[in-house]
Formats: sequence, C-alpha cells, structure tokens
Amino acid sequence: MYNRRIRNHPKVSYGHWAVNWTGVLTMERYEPFLLINFKTYLEATGKRAVELSKQIEKVGENAGVKVGVAPQFCDLEKVAASVGIPVFAQHIDSVTPGASTGHVLAESVKAAGADGTLINHSEKALLLIDIDRAVQLAKQTGLRSVVCAGTARMAAAVALSEPDMVAIEPPELIGSGRAVSKENPEIVTESVKRVRRVNRTVAILCGAGISNGDDVYAALKLGTDGVLVASGIVKATNPKEVLASFCEAVLRAA
Amino acid sequence: MYNRRIRNHPKVSYGHWAVNWTGVLTMERYEPFLLINFKTYLEATGKRAVELSKQIEKVGENAGVKVGVAPQFCDLEKVAASVGIPVFAQHIDSVTPGASTGHVLAESVKAAGADGTLINHSEKALLLIDIDRAVQLAKQTGLRSVVCAGTARMAAAVALSEPDMVAIEPPELIGSGRAVSKENPEIVTESVKRVRRVNRTVAILCGAGISNGDDVYAALKLGTDGVLVASGIVKATNPKEVLASFCEAVLRAA
Amino acid sequence: MYNRRIRNHPKVSYGHWAVNWTGVLTMERYEPFLLINFKTYLEATGKRAVELSKQIEKVGENAGVKVGVAPQFCDLEKVAASVGIPVFAQHIDSVTPGASTGHVLAESVKAAGADGTLINHSEKALLLIDIDRAVQLAKQTGLRSVVCAGTARMAAAVALSEPDMVAIEPPELIGSGRAVSKENPEIVTESVKRVRRVNRTVAILCGAGISNGDDVYAALKLGTDGVLVASGIVKATNPKEVLASFCEAVLRAA
Amino acid sequence: MYNRRIRNHPKVSYGHWAVNWTGVLTMERYEPFLLINFKTYLEATGKRAVELSKQIEKVGENAGVKVGVAPQFCDLEKVAASVGIPVFAQHIDSVTPGASTGHVLAESVKAAGADGTLINHSEKALLLIDIDRAVQLAKQTGLRSVVCAGTARMAAAVALSEPDMVAIEPPELIGSGRAVSKENPEIVTESVKRVRRVNRTVAILCGAGISNGDDVYAALKLGTDGVLVASGIVKATNPKEVLASFCEAVLRAA
Repeated sequence: MYNRRIRNHPKVSYGHWAVNWTGVLTMERYEPFLLINFKTYLEATGKRAVELSKQIEKVGENAGVKVGVAPQFCDLEKVAASVGIPVFAQHIDSVTPGASTGHVLAESVKAAGADGTLINHSEKALLLIDIDRAVQLAKQTGLRSVVCAGTARMAAAVALSEPDMVAIEPPELIGSGRAVSKENPEIVTESVKRVRRVNRTVAILCGAGISNGDDVYAALKLGTDGVLVASGIVKATNPKEVLASFCEAVLRAA
Repeated sequence: MYNRRIRNHPKVSYGHWAVNWTGVLTMERYEPFLLINFKTYLEATGKRAVELSKQIEKVGENAGVKVGVAPQFCDLEKVAASVGIPVFAQHIDSVTPGASTGHVLAESVKAAGADGTLINHSEKALLLIDIDRAVQLAKQTGLRSVVCAGTARMAAAVALSEPDMVAIEPPELIGSGRAVSKENPEIVTESVKRVRRVNRTVAILCGAGISNGDDVYAALKLGTDGVLVASGIVKATNPKEVLASFCEAVLRAA
Repeated sequence: MYNRRIRNHPKVSYGHWAVNWTGVLTMERYEPFLLINFKTYLEATGKRAVELSKQIEKVGENAGVKVGVAPQFCDLEKVAASVGIPVFAQHIDSVTPGASTGHVLAESVKAAGADGTLINHSEKALLLIDIDRAVQLAKQTGLRSVVCAGTARMAAAVALSEPDMVAIEPPELIGSGRAVSKENPEIVTESVKRVRRVNRTVAILCGAGISNGDDVYAALKLGTDGVLVASGIVKATNPKEVLASFCEAVLRAA
Repeated sequence: MYNRRIRNHPKVSYGHWAVNWTGVLTMERYEPFLLINFKTYLEATGKRAVELSKQIEKVGENAGVKVGVAPQFCDLEKVAASVGIPVFAQHIDSVTPGASTGHVLAESVKAAGADGTLINHSEKALLLIDIDRAVQLAKQTGLRSVVCAGTARMAAAVALSEPDMVAIEPPELIGSGRAVSKENPEIVTESVKRVRRVNRTVAILCGAGISNGDDVYAALKLGTDGVLVASGIVKATNPKEVLASFCEAVLRAA
C-alpha cells in the first residue's frame, strides 16, 4: 500500500519495499532527502522563493541528491511551476472545504501543485487531534506528510498516524547553529528506535541547527533518512555552496 | 493622512475627505463596497477562484459598483494577476519575517499582489493583541485592513486600531441565510454609532446572512459602507445573477 | 516501577503486577474504576461539589466499587478534605512554577489534595507536546494522570507518554446519552488493541454517553478498566440511583 | 450605576461619584489600590498563599492602604476565608455552566469567595471576543474585573467593555525589574489619555517591573489609580518590607 502511494507520486519516492536478487522481499533504505524549509524568511519570499528553489534544484541535480523545498503558501504555485523537485507546504489546517476563512485547505495546497506538507512544526504546533486529522486529510488529498516532533516519544506518537515522514526537531536547537545530530545524537537514535517500534515504513528526518555537511553526515549515520533544514541554507551567505556540502555529505554517507 | 494612504492604493479608494463646491473640507461617504470572501469553498478554490473573480469583476464593471474578492492564500497571486479589482487575503498572522513556519506573513501576501487583508474573521478569531499587531503590520506593508467584529462593542474596540475598514458580523448569523441587516438591524446601527464615537474615518461594512439585493439595500440604509458576503455569492446557483442584484441594490440605495 | 508508584498513592490502586499462587509474576486486571467528571455543571459547583462527592463515595462504599471524582479547580481542596475516594483535577497546564498567570500548576493541584488529573479532555484539547509535558509534570508531582483521546490511534499515541490511565472518548458521543460502549464498541476494542500494542500496563477507561448500568457493563466487557462519566451522573435526576446501577454493573461484569 | 455596583461589593470600593460640599456631583479619584498577583510562584502556592495574603493584609491595614491579592484557583477559597481584603482570580474563561471540562467558570470563582478576577493578563492572553464575554460574565456573576492590556491602544479597546479596572502592562517589562512607570512613563500617560477618551469611570492600574516605592509613586503621579505587581512582592526577600515601602509611596503621592 505504501508502495502504491509512492507510485502515485512520481516526483517523490523516499523508499520502498523491493524484491532483491535472491528473490526476497526486503525493505530498502530510503534515498536520503534534504528538505529546505523557507519559513517566513524574506530571503525566500515571493520571487526570491522561486530563485532559491531553482538554485536548490540545480545543486541537487548536479550532485544526484534528492532535495525538496517548503515555501510559504502564497509562493507554492509559482515555485511548483518552476521546479521539478518536491514542493511542500509548511502547514495545512485540519479543515474540510467550507466555512473556514483564513485556514489552509489541503485541496488548495494540492491545487497549487504542492506534493506534500509539513505538519506540526514546533513553530506551528498543533493539537494532537489536529495532527492526526491533518495527516489523514493529506492522504485523502494526495499530499505527502512530514510530521515534526520535538522528542523521541512524540516522534513515535506521530508515527502512529502513519505519515510519510517524521522529522525529529528538538525546539531548543532550531536556528541555534548547533546541530541536533552532533549536540544531541541520543535524541536522534532514541527517536529512530522508538519510531521503528511502532512504524516500520515511515521515513525519518532530523533537523534543528543543521548547518554544514558534517551535521548532515552525522544525521544519516544515526539512522535517519535525511534532514529538514531552514536557516542553515536560507540565511547562508552562499546557499548553493552550503547545500553542495550537504549533498557531498549525503554521497559520502551512502 | 488617510487620504494619502488611499492615493497610494489607486485600485482601492473607499472614501475620502474632499473640498466641496463651497470650499469647505468635508468627509464624503465612501463609495459602497461589496467584498466577497471565498472562505475554503471548493467552488472558489484554485482555477475556480480565478474564474469566479473574473465573473465578479465583470458584474461590478457592468453595474459600475466597486467589488472585491478574498480568495485563499494559495490563490492570491493568480487572482491578483487576473483581475483589476481589489484582492484581499483572508488573514495575516502578526509575525515579522523570520522563523515562523506555517504562518502568513504580510510581506508574502503583499508580494503575491494582494491589496489588503481580512483580520479577525470569526472563523479565524485572534487575540486582542494580535489584532492590533496585524493592523499595524498591514499598514507598514501597504495592505488595507478589514477587521471583523461580532458585536457593536467589539467593532468599536477594533476601530481603535485604525484599520481601513471594520466589518460587523454577528457569528450566529454567518452562513445562516438570515441577513444581519434585516434580522438584527439594531446591531448594525449600534455598531455604526459606537464606531463613529471613536473613529470618524474608518469605513464600515456589515455581513452575515446577506443573500439578496434587499439585504444589501438594508445594510447601506443602516449607515454602512458596504457588505462582506461569502456563501450568499460563492454557493449561489448563479453567483453572477445574485451579485448583479446586490449591485442593483447599491445603486438603488445611492 | 508502576507498582511502586501505586504504593506511593495509597488511595488509588488501579491494578498491579502480582505473584500468583504458582509463583509466577502476572499482570492482573485493574480493579474497575468509575470516574465522575463534574465539568462546569452548576449541579457540581461549590458546596454542591462536596455534597455530590460524598454521595458518590457512599454509593461506592456500599457497593464495594472504586469510584472517583473530578471537580473544578476551586473545589478541589474542600472535596479532597471531605472524601477518601480519589479526587482528580480536570486539567493541568504544562507549566512549571513561575510567571504563568492564570495557569493551572501541577504543584497547586497537588497541594490542594488532588490525587490525579485529567489531561487533554476533548473540551480542553492540548497540543501534542503539552500532553506529554503535562503527563511528565504529573508524574514528577505525584499526581496520577488520565489522558483522554478521541480515537483509537490517538489513544495509542497518548499511551506512549506512559500515563496511569487512558480514556477513550469519541467527542461526537460526549453528552449524547448514546453510550460509546454500545453505539461504537469497535472504537473501544480497537483502542484497547492499539494501546496494548505500545503499552501493556496503562489502565484503559472509556467514556461518552454512558448513562446506565448496561453501558458500563458493555464497556467493561469490551476490555476496559472502567468508565469516565459526566452528565450521566451529574445531570441525573437521582445521581445516587444511577451510580448504584453503574456499581451493580461493575459487580455483574466481574 | 457604577456606584451601585460598588455598594454591592462592600470589600472593594475603588472610586465613586460624590456630591461635594457645594452640592455638585463630582467624580472623585479612586482610592489607590495595590493588587498583588501570585502567578504560579511556589512562594505563593498552597498554604504559602494564605500566609502571604495575611502578611499583605496586615501591611495594608497598618498603612491604611487598600491592597488585594490574586492567588491561584485552587487557593482562592482558603485565601478568601482567611483575609478581609479583596481576593481576585487570575483568569476566568468565557464559558457558561455546562460541558466545559477544565475551564474556569465565573460562578465557581465566585462561590470560592473571590471578589473579582484578572482578565487577559499577557501570560493568559485572550481572543478579543473572549475578553468582552469574560467581562460581561464577571458582571453577571458579581465579580469585579481587571482587564490587562499591553499598549495604550489596547487599554482603550478593553475599556470599551466597561470593566471595573484596566491594567496597563507592557509585556516586555513584566518581571524585568525595570518599572513601567519609570522606563516608559509615556505609555502610562498615553494609556490614561486614551482610556479616558472612551471611558471616564474605569479605574486604571499599571504594572510591569514595579519593585520599589518610587516606582509606585511614579505610577500614581502619572494618573493611575494603583499598581498591579507580582515578582516585585512575591519573589522579594522580604515581601512585607517591600510592600510597606509601596504603601508609604501611596501615602506620599496622596
């Protein structure tokens, strides 16, 4: 079933069950994924969201590494129209079509061309009930979901909703420049362990403070399937260069 | 100062101070304004938001009545690029550029081409402090603000933040098909009275349950400067026809 | 460890590990528990909270069935001083001592004599992160925790925080008079199954619409360890009589 | 009408209309009021809330200065039973009796013996609509209301709901030890000016950073009717001494 969902989303395929050369069905590791969250940085607002996305796509293509972007709502459509890499919204509300002025409807995000959405980022924390609803709405609408969690226990909790990806981000390290994969590797390994106990197929990202290739390398070696990064790329003097070092680290970790 | 702000927004001019033929500076009535809120209705999502906006523009032009639309965030840019009438966001968050994943930044809405924004719609009610911040952010970003309020007292309270427009919408009548201007004219006149006591220049809209020309006529006769309407137009079998009847009522009330 | 915590709370002992007559350590069923939530009903506010609690204690004693009450914050101390049965707060905030005006501090609830607290009742739904924090704060303060969840998936998610009890309450049935254990027995069995997969020792209550002995009997037979009930008792013409029928059902189900 | 409400609350009388010796009805200044907010400080939780309240009462009595306390919900009843000074809740929810688990009902606070309640403290900020509802609920229940506001504009906005008192507290100075009355006297005078434009009878407190007698003196000289203070008293090494200096400043300012 998971596989089928992937097939429906040709642009994004983070992992899969596969029959290996001995004829056995095995779970293969997901292809590492670097997801860049544009937050509400002016450096990644409006036209600059498109420019940055194009740069990110090019660096990823050159390195042969899977990259994606998460621009603001108003920029989703033009970014999705300008690049071929996965484009994520930063949030959807757990509302269905109707009288919900000012809310972010899954169908609207999908119609704009988004491939998926972040859910429960620590800067847009949700009620437990709304996390689950948002994941289900994403599924029904054909959007991939990346649910954020600040602790290992919470990562396992959100993995129960069966999103496509879980992203571990200790809030205290977000934007700190101190990478979770180096400052607090235990939370990453503990998260992987706890998530895997309840969900064997969800992809696992980690984030917070990721700012250079070594941070990315460390993250992958801890058993994650990629990183969620924001200021480390968006606020960098030279985003392309930093992203290139991230990609190099992905290849090194392979 | 108010006038100057209007000059900076050629597309939207709801009212003005003017020197009349006797040479006296007077406050003239605002040109009536019909603002159509698309909420998260599928009938007004994605491409249908553009189509509906074009229809609305055409009906307004034919009648010579000022109309505007408030589509979802993801649709703002393409709607703004397709029509010449005022385009409003349905909400902005009281955040400044930076680490605010999933929030709606005034600059982003502005960059998408919006002329203004709703604030504090009853379906997206805000903290008092955030209402004021959002109005100031709108001003700084060059967005017009329409702040909603459910009672006469609240209408006066939000008028103190000096938005461009205040919209009275008793929540219990929203989407009811029973027009505030007929079901509860007292709340409208009371709102106008209380708002005017603290703010002489803010334009005053009313909304909730407005579904035909008579409702619009009644609203204007109660001293408002226009109406905020959603399902009455968006969910109508024939939105153009209903809007035409609204426009006819505006002209009749003049 | 669980056992030890129980020993520290002599008034409340919902279940335990025990060495049976063959010398094997086994998990025994929790003694069924009927927890009555007073909500903000006037029938259970102020002095009436004390009177009702005394009646509840007496009925429970007479029947030999474990009962507990969850009065409002202002009534916790006098209720706890008047009865010997477990007394729960209806909510605690995930705040530590300090500058949190208007919040409900775990230490304050504990100092008032409460034995535990509800967390994440659907009428006071919490952010995922705050549910986990509140459970940990309860543990640190020596309060037992009953975390509510509206779906089977959410029940498992909150069970990961290792509260003392999980309460399944489909919001749509709360206050409906239609008992979850009869209207939707599948959600109860599914919850029990999913919770047990991730947590073997948490006690499981169910609630929503429970209004007579048969509803209680059905709930216990579905594998729960008790019920959470509010209007079924508090708004009953004769609360003692209804509770007596609940107790009778508990004994019948044993 | 205001006067009548005061008569109904013999313990609290912040000001009044009075016929002076020439027979003219005049508005007299309110008797200065020092309101001590206990927040969730452990120093003022449980029994220590009662002890501190008694000390505060004694210092106020000795100096002949009106003082009041705002303990946590669970402590309201025993504090109200132990002292004769005004006792305020720190918050009420805008709910009526019924199915509102975990909420703070005005009737419950009143039944516990409270004289009034804070509303919209910056640490428990409310939706605009809920501020107004809470003030009306307080009136209906016979509770005095002190509505907090962080800016001059917001102070005027909440004054429109006609609470008994408005408290100006710039959030950035709360707990800072830098008194609003000295760091930012303009916000106080501006607030007084704006509040008086829309409400002539509401009492005006100010707060944030108040920590010694001079701060209190400055606050009163700026036209306020008292101060709202928390850590300045509760976290002081010698609360009685600090409060005595506050009282001395009140008398000096008279």
